[in-house]
Amino acid sequence: MPVSKIITRSPCAISNVLEILGDRWTLLVVRDMLFYGKHEFKEFLASPESIATNILTERLQRLSFADIIDDIAHPDNKSRKLYYLTNKGKALLPILIEMVIWAEEYLPESEIMKPIQKALKQDAEGAKLKVISRLEKWEDEYLPKKKRA
Amino acid sequence: MPVSKIITRSPCAISNVLEILGDRWTLLVVRDMLFYGKHEFKEFLASPESIATNILTERLQRLSFADIIDDIAHPDNKSRKLYYLTNKGKALLPILIEMVIWAEEYLPESEIMKPIQKALKQDAEGAKLKVISRLEKWEDEYLPKKKRA
Repeated sequence: MPVSKIITRSPCAISNVLEILGDRWTLLVVRDMLFYGKHEFKEFLASPESIATNILTERLQRLSFADIIDDIAHPDNKSRKLYYLTNKGKALLPILIEMVIWAEEYLPESEIMKPIQKALKQDAEGAKLKVISRLEKWEDEYLPKKKRA
Repeated sequence: MPVSKIITRSPCAISNVLEILGDRWTLLVVRDMLFYGKHEFKEFLASPESIATNILTERLQRLSFADIIDDIAHPDNKSRKLYYLTNKGKALLPILIEMVIWAEEYLPESEIMKPIQKALKQDAEGAKLKVISRLEKWEDEYLPKKKRA
């Protein structure tokens, strides 16, 4: 779907959420940023799901357009873009956390998330705070104050 | 994607969840069943997003294949199928609830979910129980005991 078509067409909130996020690749990019500390195009490309470059480009545009991510130039190399989650993007964490919890129960064969699943079981709020605090640590290092909410 | 291709290809739990659910239409059918008490093909077709019949057919197959929904014949008319959520399907409720909560904050123009959003704010656990208890009431009426977990 072209970026320009991200509009809220339905009177239903869930439908409008899915209009933005209802696509596997879009949420995988959000996952990479929330859980795996990724910020760069080439890092998203390296994920095990092997997203194609044209799809990745389009999904990053969609996410920017929806105000879920933003980007800045890398301080050491202006030609490298650093993507980061806005507050609206970070607020997607509970949705992905519930997916992780559901997967633990119903798709138990997923190895890579086991540490997060264990942490969620022991202390769900603590595990969420840890994710957010890692993102904020990155922001402290890379984002100029005016870019922060 | 053909139904036969629903496989867990990634070592990541979220990726595997999205392999099943990472598609707007799939989650809209789950939404229709969780929040709007829909059980029949023609009811899903009547949703405001105007899903095409071939897409709906394929998504219902995917959901059955993934053990998220099951179906029985309508007691009054054997040619009518009644679809219902399995326990695995009902367990998706927290994911959709988090979408509703996110939408209230970031997509406030969605009218139709306002009563659910209000109920969630007043008593989140109570609102979830209400959804599940409506589903169970339907099951009491339509599902033979052997079909129930």
